[in-house]
Order: sequence, then C-alpha cells, then structure tokens
Amino acid sequence: MTGFILGIDGGGTSCRAALADADGVMLGRGRSGASNILTDPDTALKHITEAARLAFEDAGLKPRLDATQAILGLAGNNVGDAVGYVTARLPFARSQIVSDGVIALQGAIGDEDGAIGIVGTGTVYIIRDQGQFRSIAGWGFQVSDLGSGARLGQLALQETLLAFDKIRPMSLLAEAILAEFDGNPELIVDFARLAKPGDFGRYTPKVFEFADQGDETALRILKVGASGVDEALDAVYAVTGAAGKLCLLGGLAPLYPPYLAERHRTRLSEPRADALTGAVELAVKAYAEKSGVRA
Amino acid sequence: MTGFILGIDGGGTSCRAALADADGVMLGRGRSGASNILTDPDTALKHITEAARLAFEDAGLKPRLDATQAILGLAGNNVGDAVGYVTARLPFARSQIVSDGVIALQGAIGDEDGAIGIVGTGTVYIIRDQGQFRSIAGWGFQVSDLGSGARLGQLALQETLLAFDKIRPMSLLAEAILAEFDGNPELIVDFARLAKPGDFGRYTPKVFEFADQGDETALRILKVGASGVDEALDAVYAVTGAAGKLCLLGGLAPLYPPYLAERHRTRLSEPRADALTGAVELAVKAYAEKSGVRA
Repeated sequence: MTGFILGIDGGGTSCRAALADADGVMLGRGRSGASNILTDPDTALKHITEAARLAFEDAGLKPRLDATQAILGLAGNNVGDAVGYVTARLPFARSQIVSDGVIALQGAIGDEDGAIGIVGTGTVYIIRDQGQFRSIAGWGFQVSDLGSGARLGQLALQETLLAFDKIRPMSLLAEAILAEFDGNPELIVDFARLAKPGDFGRYTPKVFEFADQGDETALRILKVGASGVDEALDAVYAVTGAAGKLCLLGGLAPLYPPYLAERHRTRLSEPRADALTGAVELAVKAYAEKSGVRA
Repeated sequence: MTGFILGIDGGGTSCRAALADADGVMLGRGRSGASNILTDPDTALKHITEAARLAFEDAGLKPRLDATQAILGLAGNNVGDAVGYVTARLPFARSQIVSDGVIALQGAIGDEDGAIGIVGTGTVYIIRDQGQFRSIAGWGFQVSDLGSGARLGQLALQETLLAFDKIRPMSLLAEAILAEFDGNPELIVDFARLAKPGDFGRYTPKVFEFADQGDETALRILKVGASGVDEALDAVYAVTGAAGKLCLLGGLAPLYPPYLAERHRTRLSEPRADALTGAVELAVKAYAEKSGVRA
C-alpha cells in the first residue's frame, strides 16, 4: 500500500476524522470544532486539518497529510462556490467533498441500494438507486422538513398558545411549556420571533416525553409530525421499491418509530455503521479504484 | 358644543384621521404615512399630527389640535412604553390610545356585544363581552395566526416543495409557484429564509384563485387554513354565546366564507362601518361622558 486513507464527517458543531490504511483498516480518530463550509470556510479548513492531525496522533504516527487521500462528507456541499474554495485549499494528496448524507448512507446501509431518513433538527431523505443518489425534503425549517425536531418544537409552542387562548384544551405539555415562559404568552412570541431551528428543537424532547404519558397535545403534535415522515417515506419507496433497505438516523430516530405507520415501521433496519465509517469506506473504494465517488 | 372630536386609525402603512363635531357629525378626513408606535414612535407622532391637520383642512377649518379630543386606534398599543411615550407627546387637548382591534370592532358592530375576526396577513379575534374586550390569537406568524394570509402563503410554498419532491401530487398551483421561482426549489428556500409575513402573503391570492378552479393543492391549503379559523371562531362563540354578532374584516374576509364551517358561515354579518368611524364613535362617547374608553 501507499499512503493513508482519511474519512471526514463535518458539520455545524464538530468535525470528526478517521484514519485508515489503504485497505480500510482503522488506525486512529480525531475530533475538532465546527466545519460548516458555507458559513465559515476558513474555520472549516482549520478544523478539518486539525481533526486529521489528531487522527494521525491517535494512531501514534507523524502526520502525513500530503500522503493522505480523503473523502469529506460535509454539510453545505451543494453550494459550488464553497466546495471549490475549500477543495482548492485542503492539505491532502487527493480529496473529494461529498454530502454529509452520502457518507451517512454508506455507513448505514453499505454498498446496497436503499435509503436513509435523517430525522433530527431538520429532516432529509437520501436514496441510492442503482448507484445514483437522490435526496427528498431537507429544504429547511421554514417551508420543509415536516416532522423535524424544529417543526415539532414550533408546533409545541403553537399548541401552547392555542391552549392559552382556549382554542384547544389545555394539557400538561402546554402547561409545562407555558410555565417555562413564566405563564406569559408574549414571552413565547418574543422567543419564536428570533428562534433558529435548534432553538425550537429544544422543546421536542418534551413532546415525546409527554406523548409517552398519553398527553393529548403531545400526541396531536406527533401525529402531524409522523404523518410528514410517513408521506416522505412513501415517496422514498416509490423510488427504491420494497426491496431497498431503510434506516432512520439522527436524534429523533430512536423516538419516532412507535408513531410511524406500520408499513414503514416494520421495514426499518438498524444502521450497520456510522457516517465516519461510511466516509472511510468510500475513500478506500474511490482511491483503490482510482475513480471518483458520485455525490 | 366645545371643541372637536378626532378619530385616528393608524398602522404600519398609513394613518387615517376623521374630524367630527362634538355630536359626531363628520367634518373632514385626512391621510398620511405609517404610524407604528412600536417600531418608530417619532414618525408615528409626525404622521398622526399630519393626518389630523389634513382632516381640518379637508373640513375647510384652521387646525385647532389643542381644542381636539382624540381616540387613536393604533397597532402596537399593547406595549406600555410606546403608548406612554406617544401619549405624552400628542398635540391634542385630550387623547387616548386604544388597540386597532377595538376601533375596528366598534365600527363593525357598534355598541353591541359580539366579535370581529380580522383575517388579513395576520389573524386576530376581538370580542366585546358585557363591555369588556378580549382578544384571541394574533400572536404572530411564527407560532400563531393559523389561517392568516402569511400562513396560507407559507403553506403554498411548502406544498410546492412537497410536489417537487413527489411527496404530494404536482398541481397547477404548485406548477405556477415553481415557475415564479424559475423551476428552482433552492430559490424558494432562499426566499422563505428571509420572508416576512407580508412576503409569504403575496402567494395567498393565488391559493384562493386556484381553489376556485378546483386545484387540489389549493383546496388542501384552504382546508388547513379554514380549520384554523373555524377553531378560533368556536373559541369566540364560547365567550359571546350564540346571540353575539360576528363580522369578518381584513383582506381575506370576502374570500374565506365559502371554505368555513356552515355553523360559522351562516352567522356572519356585514360590518356596519369602518374602523375610523369606530374611533370617532368611541371619541364622542368618551368625551361626552367625560370618562375613558376601556382598551
């Protein structure tokens, strides 16, 4: 073998790196800070390099970035300008930026056709169909991502105001949320005006928690959310057919299944590995075959 | 009689004034620019004064603001600081700021108990019950105002993306909206990220237009919107009882009735006068009786 293989899984909060030999045998791992190539490409470059060096250190090796071939799965990869800027400045012998969804799918289902649904603060569905990638939803909180943590949290605040106004019955969930805002609906409005998706998403664990206890407001919210996920999964199946594997990933993946339609629930499988492992696998294949990975 | 009576109806885009004698006989009208006391109280003061002077001119009279008693129905009246600042600086002999909803209700249903639903870019319901005012909804676009123009427009963009992703069937409405964004869903996302309620509301006329032609997407959006209005009206009736009058006001008022539940549709009545007339009526009563108006 010649040189090293590196997988990078980077996003808005952290950047993780896994170092392997040319056969994909793991040697070490590293972790650094945010690597959002859209909002701050220079910081992303710094953290990608740092995570790579830490992976070499973790393996007990002197960093040899110039002898390393990397696949980087990064959020924001669909904006050409950012990708070009970052790719030109990466310190590796060869590197390719793909979407964070593509490495997650590789990790979860390996080389097979199938799909993943990432249900976290946002929602997006990535399909591999005869080697081709497609994504569904994931357009963001304002007009998409039905069933996402952000949308569920927003619905929780909305339902709290509906209960306050006696438009819908008061419930323990609505009481609990109202209490967090000192019983003052105007504080909810102030919060919502400036809230980012992650801010709304902070109320989502409470929704699942109260739904478990049979709270009607929480169950109504999850009915809306699960219906959004169910409909998207129907669209996924229309592409993959019944044979395709399906995994749910993301923070809400363990919580959602009981609320999904049975036709989907019974077809879910556990992911076989994480996104970082997926990135390493793709890198091994790409550089062994001397060919690019489709993103 | 001594002095003049002035009604002011002010909001984010304009300020209207109506001048009357102490018996409420209309003498003249004036109109000036924005008078949002929350976002720009000094400009609001300038435009209120200008509209009042123009009403005197319209009546063929020399402005006598210091001999004028005014009721001002202004958006943003629920924030005490702004009200205090503006009230202290108004040029009138006596003046009182009430909500824009209170003067609209007075105009629409007069002195009776009852309610109005203002369905425009936002939605809010104002109830007068044994002389006491209450409002329902109206907490703003992010977590309230179900069925408002802003929410309908947002739903239209959301449905367009769902159709683009084949999660729901493509329709003529979704095609028309997608065409406005050059067939590029990313342009919808860019728009939505920065859109204010009025920006979303620009797509709402199209929703009603296509619903008239039986478009399934448009009908689905209006079903959601009308259900939000129906539920709020149920909460209104729980306060007013069946005897109370009900008027819909605002830009969507002429469009919504065919989509509302029959129990509400059959109870709607036409407003008897506009908000500015309501402000004058309240001023005549307040200053004739030498007592304040409740807001």
